[in-house]
Amino acid sequence: MDRLNIGLVGYGVVGQGVVKALKNRRKFLREKYETDFFVKTICDRSISKKPNPSLDQTLLTSDYNVILKDSDIHVVVELIGGLSPAKEIVLGALRAKKHVVTANKALIAECGLELFKEADANGRSILFESSVGAGIPIIRTITEGMAGNKFNGVYGIINGTCNYILTAMSKNKLTFSQALKEAQEKGYAESNPTLDISGMDSAYKLAILVFLTMGKFVNVKDIYVEGINHISHDDIEFAESLNLTIRLLAIGKKIGNQLDVRVHPTMIPKDHGLATVNGVDNAIFLDSDPLGDVFIEGQGAGQMTAAMGVVADLINLGIRVDAPACIWAFNPADEVANISLRKIDEVETRFYIRFMVIDKPGVLAAITTVLGQHNISISSVTQKQEDKGSTVPVVILTHQVNERQVKEALDKITDLAVVRGRPVAIRMEKL
Amino acid sequence: MDRLNIGLVGYGVVGQGVVKALKNRRKFLREKYETDFFVKTICDRSISKKPNPSLDQTLLTSDYNVILKDSDIHVVVELIGGLSPAKEIVLGALRAKKHVVTANKALIAECGLELFKEADANGRSILFESSVGAGIPIIRTITEGMAGNKFNGVYGIINGTCNYILTAMSKNKLTFSQALKEAQEKGYAESNPTLDISGMDSAYKLAILVFLTMGKFVNVKDIYVEGINHISHDDIEFAESLNLTIRLLAIGKKIGNQLDVRVHPTMIPKDHGLATVNGVDNAIFLDSDPLGDVFIEGQGAGQMTAAMGVVADLINLGIRVDAPACIWAFNPADEVANISLRKIDEVETRFYIRFMVIDKPGVLAAITTVLGQHNISISSVTQKQEDKGSTVPVVILTHQVNERQVKEALDKITDLAVVRGRPVAIRMEKL
Repeated sequence: MDRLNIGLVGYGVVGQGVVKALKNRRKFLREKYETDFFVKTICDRSISKKPNPSLDQTLLTSDYNVILKDSDIHVVVELIGGLSPAKEIVLGALRAKKHVVTANKALIAECGLELFKEADANGRSILFESSVGAGIPIIRTITEGMAGNKFNGVYGIINGTCNYILTAMSKNKLTFSQALKEAQEKGYAESNPTLDISGMDSAYKLAILVFLTMGKFVNVKDIYVEGINHISHDDIEFAESLNLTIRLLAIGKKIGNQLDVRVHPTMIPKDHGLATVNGVDNAIFLDSDPLGDVFIEGQGAGQMTAAMGVVADLINLGIRVDAPACIWAFNPADEVANISLRKIDEVETRFYIRFMVIDKPGVLAAITTVLGQHNISISSVTQKQEDKGSTVPVVILTHQVNERQVKEALDKITDLAVVRGRPVAIRMEKL
Repeated sequence: MDRLNIGLVGYGVVGQGVVKALKNRRKFLREKYETDFFVKTICDRSISKKPNPSLDQTLLTSDYNVILKDSDIHVVVELIGGLSPAKEIVLGALRAKKHVVTANKALIAECGLELFKEADANGRSILFESSVGAGIPIIRTITEGMAGNKFNGVYGIINGTCNYILTAMSKNKLTFSQALKEAQEKGYAESNPTLDISGMDSAYKLAILVFLTMGKFVNVKDIYVEGINHISHDDIEFAESLNLTIRLLAIGKKIGNQLDVRVHPTMIPKDHGLATVNGVDNAIFLDSDPLGDVFIEGQGAGQMTAAMGVVADLINLGIRVDAPACIWAFNPADEVANISLRKIDEVETRFYIRFMVIDKPGVLAAITTVLGQHNISISSVTQKQEDKGSTVPVVILTHQVNERQVKEALDKITDLAVVRGRPVAIRMEKL
């Protein structure tokens, strides 16, 4: 089209990045896509305190209704995050027959189905490339590039902060706290990093990936989530010696008519693509049928990285403003209707378990006896010689075992007099 | 749309894969995309000798005009390869207001601009996801997912046959001939493997990637192309010891207002993503602005792998049959108008050079003197102790040097009495 009029709600870091990209590239984009990408109105609660975008004719406002009521605006870009008032803004935009572009992972993960239906009812598109994987074009890779495939699994490193911390702990031999502090100093972690390091940020993104690949929206609160704050340098070193690497992995797998969906620190083989993803990079590994494995990696953080996902969405809209701009359909195929979420207790994986024990004879027998009583089959045992004191780590790798068995066994082992503290259990994924 | 009527021209391996995928997934696709993907007519020169697709109501013909003249057919899928009659079929389809899906790399690389203009003039789309990277959705990643970015470079392992051979030579210590034979036995190499191992197949694909990323169609015959048949096991072992890996790399780089476009065996750092691409996998590494580095890897061969790229194209068309199904525009931005191709003589890279020399004092001095006379700065020299005979390899790594200097120096060194045969020179790429 000649000109795509954009109403931007939320003029924070990413919003400013979008404005910058559209301004700097206006001529390039106009020539290449025969469309003028025009930011008509910018809305921000505290717009008077924000840097002036110095765009000709752009209206600044603190009232988003100005945008919703403007019949000239074709697309609303929602970048305020959170559920409210983001949801009202997106629904209002769709009902006013405007397309929506959003980077709001929580909104799509929690209210996606409702929003997609509203978009469909109004003949408009809702695009959200930036909601997962920052600038990596994962949404379109799944929905357009790999259209027609079925997916058996999706495995992602989708939180740049956690990956930065784990990489720094491993490469620079830092503790978790030191690595977190470094990430904060470099701007890769928020001053309140809870959403990231708790794994919740990954869980929102995983819910979106699972919907796109397997057709079912799982409730985010039903996803098993474990963060990285209990990972110690010892575990990273043990992993290294076992030719494994620890990454915060978001996992979604189809097993029969169940979905196994979880986020937790995971030990993966060192030579797998995901193990080589360092720093703030994000990466996603797709197990598809019949296309097989597809792996995609790119930057997972940064103002322009996130902004360019929004720009790609805007270009897709500009080129075909009167046609469906997204080809994923909100109506999943019949075959997913009966799929349910597998409870974490029923999940089976291999485990790395580190016990801190008093260094005296009989300890190993006490531990392995309990494991045996819970039908936990052991693959290997490593006891590290240390001079530091009387407490030494014992590392046990299990074969494939049931979560509940491990939990119950560790409860009992924690109570043993020769064991100090609760053992650290990290799941292993073969991939 | 309700039903997308497809006319398929070329019922070989990939064509049969497309028919199989659409047949097996017909219900899934109809539910998910609200479109019935219906193969109305199949055309093949020798249709009577082909396996029967056992599709209801599908018409079989050996005359492609049956498809071009059928006003019910929305899209022509061209899978016969080569330039003629593929070009006539594609032009005929577009002029008959049909969309086109093709996997024909030579056709797009050689005649792309003409075809895109014809598509545009007729308001129809021409899609070619399967032409590069087999099933890896690289075309949409560049044009849609990363829309709005500029590209500084594209680096690809885009020939599965060559990658299989190089991997087998390295992992199983095979010679080139043994590895080629193995690839042929496994169906990864044609009985006449020239197009693949000469690098020409990669050159066609590279021309398409360079157009999509940098907006300029380079003439395939102007691309510098070097195959892999001169790579010896010695070179692979030397590379290994230098922490490098040899891959047939397709390289497209923007340097000022020049494009540096070439295909040749390349030594790359072992820890780079591209070095970990094994077997018949394909992978592409994109250096973009501002999104940064994006890396994508997937299967590079196989009937269904190639077929699914075609299926993805068909789904994109089915969802928006009356709108542009591709968002790359054939009108590149002004800024590429003045870009020219850099001649190989002017290219600067680092080189690995292996000389086979007579093992006696003064040889190294003779070689390094010639290199010095041609301003070739040396980074390291390795001389391997061997008991085999009087001829030993000397390996020299250079700093960044000009191609012409290297060529001239090697001409002179080949003439030295102490040197046996022409030295093997392999470019190194830092990435």
